[in-house]
Amino acid sequence: MGYGNLARGVESAVLTSGDMSLTAVFTRRDPSAVRTRSGTPVFSASRAGEFRDKIDVMVLCGGSATDLPEQTPLAAAMFDVVDSFDTHARIEEHFRRVDEAARGGGHAALIACGWDPGLFSMQRMLSAAVLPRGKDYTFWGRGVSQGHSDAIRRIPGVRDARQYTVPVPQSVNAVRAGDMPDLSVRQKHTRECFVVLEEGADPHAVREAIVSMPHYFSDYDTTVRFISAEEMERDHLGMPHGGFVIRSGVTGTDGEHRQLIEYSLKLDSNPEFTGSVLAACARAVYRKRRAGAVGCFTVADVTLSELSEKTGEELRRLL
Amino acid sequence: MGYGNLARGVESAVLTSGDMSLTAVFTRRDPSAVRTRSGTPVFSASRAGEFRDKIDVMVLCGGSATDLPEQTPLAAAMFDVVDSFDTHARIEEHFRRVDEAARGGGHAALIACGWDPGLFSMQRMLSAAVLPRGKDYTFWGRGVSQGHSDAIRRIPGVRDARQYTVPVPQSVNAVRAGDMPDLSVRQKHTRECFVVLEEGADPHAVREAIVSMPHYFSDYDTTVRFISAEEMERDHLGMPHGGFVIRSGVTGTDGEHRQLIEYSLKLDSNPEFTGSVLAACARAVYRKRRAGAVGCFTVADVTLSELSEKTGEELRRLL
Repeated sequence: MGYGNLARGVESAVLTSGDMSLTAVFTRRDPSAVRTRSGTPVFSASRAGEFRDKIDVMVLCGGSATDLPEQTPLAAAMFDVVDSFDTHARIEEHFRRVDEAARGGGHAALIACGWDPGLFSMQRMLSAAVLPRGKDYTFWGRGVSQGHSDAIRRIPGVRDARQYTVPVPQSVNAVRAGDMPDLSVRQKHTRECFVVLEEGADPHAVREAIVSMPHYFSDYDTTVRFISAEEMERDHLGMPHGGFVIRSGVTGTDGEHRQLIEYSLKLDSNPEFTGSVLAACARAVYRKRRAGAVGCFTVADVTLSELSEKTGEELRRLL
Repeated sequence: MGYGNLARGVESAVLTSGDMSLTAVFTRRDPSAVRTRSGTPVFSASRAGEFRDKIDVMVLCGGSATDLPEQTPLAAAMFDVVDSFDTHARIEEHFRRVDEAARGGGHAALIACGWDPGLFSMQRMLSAAVLPRGKDYTFWGRGVSQGHSDAIRRIPGVRDARQYTVPVPQSVNAVRAGDMPDLSVRQKHTRECFVVLEEGADPHAVREAIVSMPHYFSDYDTTVRFISAEEMERDHLGMPHGGFVIRSGVTGTDGEHRQLIEYSLKLDSNPEFTGSVLAACARAVYRKRRAGAVGCFTVADVTLSELSEKTGEELRRLL
């Protein structure tokens, strides 16, 4: 459902898998205006209901702000579904609504599948289970934040913008050293903005509008660089991202031994990687449903065997 | 079952958890000669059968060479069990024997729980599910290898020895750069040996016996340093270990984007960390059994929710 960057990432992951195939793409745009890379047929979103017996899993590829809160419950009443809902503060609310819809329809749903939430969540859960006495640290970047880039683009005088979230090296190093520091928002990440101005725009005013923007930039050390449209095109077209989750903990009766777990991602293409996670989660929700599961689930509820294309014996070889 | 370093790690993890308690320790030694740190009562291993209704899970803390191949199937016929069987090449055989015994007794068993196999295995499974087009790299260390230390101690003229497995930095860096190199055994790890000689022993002969030892050292670049008993006591008493699992993969229709996943552990105490993993796995096998599962399982079959002390809602907060 949907055919933006994330959906193209899912498409590519499904097509290169050995056990999945792509049946249909649904769009709210005019279907005749959408051409899929794989040649998969495109239908109007309003016709999705006709496909109840033709597809095993619907992968919802919309945004978390307005699309998914509405689409996932609707779809879960008719299909087994996965989504990448990522508004951390509203996950519980989304979970309950999707759970109700899925139970009503006798379907299974797996929400918040991506890398954060998603793989990073799995690591936070696993590390906390193994090292209950400890502290979690999550750093994002260096990578492009779509939301922050969009926020800059809405400022008058800005023609284009790209915002990179960058972890503060000193803070990362302190955590890796096992120091368990308390870190403020400002101490964890800096924000680097690359901005193409409209002709005649005032760079001082634009810079001030960015760095003082509440929530997005005012709590951070933010740098703003003005570049040409050509430089933007040449140097900032990719969608790299990544980050790391660190659990710094102790073991021993008196907590005398330090133990450090770190999980990190270095991604050349954020949407393709997220799409790959969604594809694996589509496999998992299919299997859960076939095993009789109904309702809403998260990555806390899936096994690696459900996520994997491999057989039990093949997986045991990876032990 | 057993009360060595690993069992003391499990003891400490269980005692600091909020939902487990330690009922009994079993030993093949004279129980009156074993004193547990926690004051938990010690019984002869031969009396374990009397505890069938008194304990939920038996944690097997013996070695993989001779203890576990015999103990785990025996115990799985009577109890829900976990072990840390780590002879990679014999896991399938062990799995089948434990599965048969557990099914016969109507119990659940979770084998090969530790960090490798264990957490590292989970990462290999997860990364391969998300990035099917890619390559796995596992590096161990810098850390003490008990098996290699023991092998050196068996050489005539050696009073004590400690062997550190050390990843080769150039190879690690090449993998992190996304190069996907083919690495020989020698290119992945070096071996550092610290040896205390018996009085009058010939250091040249001992060094030669170490570096030429098949399987253990002959395929590696090995350094041998002779130290005093005081230096051994002062500098090499700890049991640090760690390592990392890297999946280097690609996404996109033509594999045009590189994606790198890395999981790393930096452990001050290997047995306490492994014991913490076993304790979380004991929780998981208990829950699987209560949900009706019977037979042998691995980390491929457990959910993070089963491993965790937290409730579903608490876990969703970690999303």
